[in-house]
Amino acid sequence: MVRARGTEFGKKAAAERGSSQGREGREAPSRVVIEGVSPELDGGRFPVKRTVGESVAVSGDIHADGHDELVAVLLHRVDSDRDWSETPLQPLGNDRWRASFRVERQAPHVYTLEAWLDPFLTWRRGLLRKSEVGRVERVDLLVGAELVEEAAGRAGGPAVRALRSWAKALRPVRAELAAQVGRALDEELRALMLRHADRGAGVRYAKELRVEVDRERARFSTWYEMFPRSAASEAGRHGTFRDCESRLDEIAEMGFDVLYLPPIHPIGDAHRKGRNNNPLAEAGEVGSPWAIGAAEGGHTAIHPQLGSVADFQRLVKAAQRRGIEIALDFAAQCSPDHPWVKQHPLWFRSRPDGTVQYAENPPKKYEDIYPLNFESPEWRGLWEALLEVVRFWIGQGVRVFRVDNPHTKPYRFWEWLIAEVRREHADVLFLAEAFTRPRVMYQLAKLGFTQSYTYFAWRNTKAELTEYFTELSRGEASEYFRANLWPNTPDILTEYLQFGGRPAFMTRLALAATLGASYGIYGPAFELSENRPRSAGGEEYLDSEKYEIRFWDRDNADSLRPFIARVNRIRRENPALQQDRNLHFHAVDNEQLIAYSKSSEDGTNTILTVVNLDPHHAHSGWMELPLAELSLSAQQPYQVHDLLTDARFLWSGPRNYVHLDPREAPAHIFRLRRKVRTERDFDYFL
Amino acid sequence: MVRARGTEFGKKAAAERGSSQGREGREAPSRVVIEGVSPELDGGRFPVKRTVGESVAVSGDIHADGHDELVAVLLHRVDSDRDWSETPLQPLGNDRWRASFRVERQAPHVYTLEAWLDPFLTWRRGLLRKSEVGRVERVDLLVGAELVEEAAGRAGGPAVRALRSWAKALRPVRAELAAQVGRALDEELRALMLRHADRGAGVRYAKELRVEVDRERARFSTWYEMFPRSAASEAGRHGTFRDCESRLDEIAEMGFDVLYLPPIHPIGDAHRKGRNNNPLAEAGEVGSPWAIGAAEGGHTAIHPQLGSVADFQRLVKAAQRRGIEIALDFAAQCSPDHPWVKQHPLWFRSRPDGTVQYAENPPKKYEDIYPLNFESPEWRGLWEALLEVVRFWIGQGVRVFRVDNPHTKPYRFWEWLIAEVRREHADVLFLAEAFTRPRVMYQLAKLGFTQSYTYFAWRNTKAELTEYFTELSRGEASEYFRANLWPNTPDILTEYLQFGGRPAFMTRLALAATLGASYGIYGPAFELSENRPRSAGGEEYLDSEKYEIRFWDRDNADSLRPFIARVNRIRRENPALQQDRNLHFHAVDNEQLIAYSKSSEDGTNTILTVVNLDPHHAHSGWMELPLAELSLSAQQPYQVHDLLTDARFLWSGPRNYVHLDPREAPAHIFRLRRKVRTERDFDYFL
Repeated sequence: MVRARGTEFGKKAAAERGSSQGREGREAPSRVVIEGVSPELDGGRFPVKRTVGESVAVSGDIHADGHDELVAVLLHRVDSDRDWSETPLQPLGNDRWRASFRVERQAPHVYTLEAWLDPFLTWRRGLLRKSEVGRVERVDLLVGAELVEEAAGRAGGPAVRALRSWAKALRPVRAELAAQVGRALDEELRALMLRHADRGAGVRYAKELRVEVDRERARFSTWYEMFPRSAASEAGRHGTFRDCESRLDEIAEMGFDVLYLPPIHPIGDAHRKGRNNNPLAEAGEVGSPWAIGAAEGGHTAIHPQLGSVADFQRLVKAAQRRGIEIALDFAAQCSPDHPWVKQHPLWFRSRPDGTVQYAENPPKKYEDIYPLNFESPEWRGLWEALLEVVRFWIGQGVRVFRVDNPHTKPYRFWEWLIAEVRREHADVLFLAEAFTRPRVMYQLAKLGFTQSYTYFAWRNTKAELTEYFTELSRGEASEYFRANLWPNTPDILTEYLQFGGRPAFMTRLALAATLGASYGIYGPAFELSENRPRSAGGEEYLDSEKYEIRFWDRDNADSLRPFIARVNRIRRENPALQQDRNLHFHAVDNEQLIAYSKSSEDGTNTILTVVNLDPHHAHSGWMELPLAELSLSAQQPYQVHDLLTDARFLWSGPRNYVHLDPREAPAHIFRLRRKVRTERDFDYFL
Repeated sequence: MVRARGTEFGKKAAAERGSSQGREGREAPSRVVIEGVSPELDGGRFPVKRTVGESVAVSGDIHADGHDELVAVLLHRVDSDRDWSETPLQPLGNDRWRASFRVERQAPHVYTLEAWLDPFLTWRRGLLRKSEVGRVERVDLLVGAELVEEAAGRAGGPAVRALRSWAKALRPVRAELAAQVGRALDEELRALMLRHADRGAGVRYAKELRVEVDRERARFSTWYEMFPRSAASEAGRHGTFRDCESRLDEIAEMGFDVLYLPPIHPIGDAHRKGRNNNPLAEAGEVGSPWAIGAAEGGHTAIHPQLGSVADFQRLVKAAQRRGIEIALDFAAQCSPDHPWVKQHPLWFRSRPDGTVQYAENPPKKYEDIYPLNFESPEWRGLWEALLEVVRFWIGQGVRVFRVDNPHTKPYRFWEWLIAEVRREHADVLFLAEAFTRPRVMYQLAKLGFTQSYTYFAWRNTKAELTEYFTELSRGEASEYFRANLWPNTPDILTEYLQFGGRPAFMTRLALAATLGASYGIYGPAFELSENRPRSAGGEEYLDSEKYEIRFWDRDNADSLRPFIARVNRIRRENPALQQDRNLHFHAVDNEQLIAYSKSSEDGTNTILTVVNLDPHHAHSGWMELPLAELSLSAQQPYQVHDLLTDARFLWSGPRNYVHLDPREAPAHIFRLRRKVRTERDFDYFL
């Protein structure tokens, strides 16, 4: 099938014509250059990422010698399809051109650019200018007639007759010149000529650039992290998968759609850590779930106290019924008791004294963890075994993995593993927990991770937030790095949360949920505003769940559960909040107030968020909105509807007053409602 | 021959080891990534440009998973050599690395990057940290001894024994631990281990990037444009090459080293233009030299009234003796009388009425010019014929061509022609006269033009000059676009010159000569401050030499000849002014005063220029110098020596007062002389 949707240019699919770049045939080399194409990650080495329904805006520098009219098109298709779709590129000035296409299916797409110089359009422009000053000559029309005749030669079907008839009309047989010129400039002829342009002397960009297409949750997801062993309904008991099941309703009501469980495997006994990371556990202490592997098994086994594989499958299905996916932790490391230590000694580094090298960050030692040796002579076996682990859990119904410390395992390993998994199961998502240097985080995202943790937890001031989220939403990273914002994790209790009280938790939740299409919290510590650190100046929790079972008073009156539920409902109901490349910051004349908006691609849904960053004091200020960019009129008032409080305000003009008291609500999440007129002249707000 | 200059890393040339990128052998893929390499023009499609003795600063993003110590080197060589030279890359932070190399020969160079993770350095860092807190164990030293033993296995010659001896020293046979650690951290061992590092698990950047190396005049040149037919010593006579010869001393005394002549070929008769571009010449009028070709011949013929080929050769040699090169105009277009019009009708476009298509920019017509059809079916013959034209003049001793309107001929043609010419004669230089859109100008420079005209003529304000020359000297363009600044040309008499009087000419000359390592003037119109336009609002000269012979009163007392000579001497004597990537602007608190400095690469020569941009009024202001960047001390005074007036000032600190009256001198061209102390404690200024 030959398609040419959304274009005026063509029946012939461009794929049928070869690129003329570098050809050495009878015809002269193409005069057109296409360069500076964007997005193009590392010269096309990596794909950009989209979810079904999202657009890719492609631009490039396209130019040629001289002053001939240039026509350029964006070509795009599902990779496995044969034929290109075409969209005309629009000139932006300074030889830059741009067009967009929408990815319609969850399958890899490719795109490229094609351009050519159009003699007919060049001739037409000249004729127009000459006609404006009354300097058209008969021969000018003959030149045009020749071009139309040539197009007839290229065309097929009814177009041949139409073009011949146009050519005839241009030949001046005693006709009045002005009428001839009018005919020559007819829009219908222009469109016909464009459809049958001679693209043989054009050029196709040398690369076909790729788009990796994910399902929607890759872009828009709301995560809840919970230690299953703390899920028991009464204190003092080791939680089970059954207990987790009974928590699902509450999690669904709060509006989460991914439930992430720290490792669920048997925990090693050797060098087991005690409460508050004591170097050695006392008898009966449960240890860290990240010390994976014991006599009962390794990465494909389940901690006996949590339940059976059947229990786990039940949990997965029960969650599914509530729209929740279970995300598992994938931590490629072993406790000294992991079966692999004996079965595959070469998968670990051994020391000259015959002992196995434990994890260390000198002078710190982590003797309860053996890192895997990805450079082992048996690396292939190790890589395959880790892939088998992922396959095993996919077999149990898991489609989301949170990967622990991917930045301490080789890039090539992840690139290979993710590609292998996605070849078999394109719906599997990977979240990279790489709290490390920016280029390393970006590299992991480029080579396949679906989502990534970010520096959000440590970006607190307006300047920090604005700079960081401008980079993430508008820089090149926005093409491949999908941020997942976590105000807290079991490893991260920030100073801001330690000292800001309950309002700080509300502020950080509002920011995470509106700045990021994907965010998550480590709860119930979060909804209960747990903020006691193990030591001053540190970010570890006191009595951290990493080393012990906690019982949480979930029904505490101060729980943020209702607030979280409200925020997450706003996210679900407003498509503007379900994407990231649409973020724009707005000026407020108070450093403690930050304002930003997001609009859905069709422009019908706009959310304006204002947050008070100071958890201790009320702040007010004047905010300045770019009315035109928000499709608001400077003449007409507009309504802002605070979806948190249900309050509505009528605003007009770009400058408006905002006031936020953290003791009441630290944020406005406004939906903008534009005033419009119907044909009946009733006012209402859209 | 194996070379490893300027590096501590190695006897083995890296070229002897294969890149591990993508290898599928027994060893695991490399963990290192090299990306974001700069300079890299369009993914390596085009070379960067240098002249002999210049440096190339190369940087790249280099990183790996984990926290191992990374070592990276810049590899560079003359393309035709077999072995690489190496320079260690230095980390700049944020995983960016940089190093420089100098091109030593006028031959294409190539460069690339290589990096690897170094287990010994990683181990050494760990040992150091452990030793700082007294936590070294015997086994730590054994691990190090193993690494040294492995290096001995890789090494050859005396290094084997040295490494074995080090390994032995690390094995703790009853030795005191602290002493062992001291030995392990010995710098000599570190250097030895670096030289015998295991680079097998490293990675070589996939591309070898190219440097095109020119002779010095490509970078530093001073051009004088002159119509030979106006060179006669008395009014009313058609000038000759002999007349040009008698002008050479004067041109040499002014300090020019390129004498550019507009086309010297027979001029067409058909549609010949008259004085002041009258559509039709009267009998006896000389016509435009750009209407190339008549019965006497075309692009390889000489206008009979200028002289013979022998006369031309004499002129070339006479100029050479004075250090001046003759630059010819290469205008790939024909008058209707050019022999090619009859010999090769297919090299032109014909119209349906059988006439040849003349040049036009509708509704304007240029009937005295036939453009060549580079897309003709006989394009190969045409391209070859044009190459033959260039070869012909090279045969007459010409090594510099000023190419007329290259932007109206295909990119591919120029890329091919320049490559062909430079394959045979690497010393030939091409100046692109492409006054067109930025990307087109940059493209021509990328594909081979040695130098390029610029927008300088129209950049008059401080903001305009600062923005444009920052782009040219520090942007990517600085790697391939060599600016040649012309305050005027026969086509360009700017408003600034029209209305600024003699001071305007001085200002623009001072700017051109100090902002640009290459600049040129169209004289004698320039030195005589010729500023009468043909029409108000236009940039054409009244009584332009393009259409008639002019007799110039060269000995006029107001001639800028002495000023020009002084400025050009300053340029010759100060290497800082002979390059472009060293330009830095400095703040002055007066919008009419612009200040900037250039320093030679070795830092011994610094020129600070201050120009009054207002040709009508004196201006003064406080200038702020970045003392540290200029290697000046904030504590000690420094001398600024105005090379235009020979005045010397003693300044101190960053802020100093400047005053410039355009009626006296519109510019300071200061040489900075730093105060230094010798061992004898005499003060003097370097």
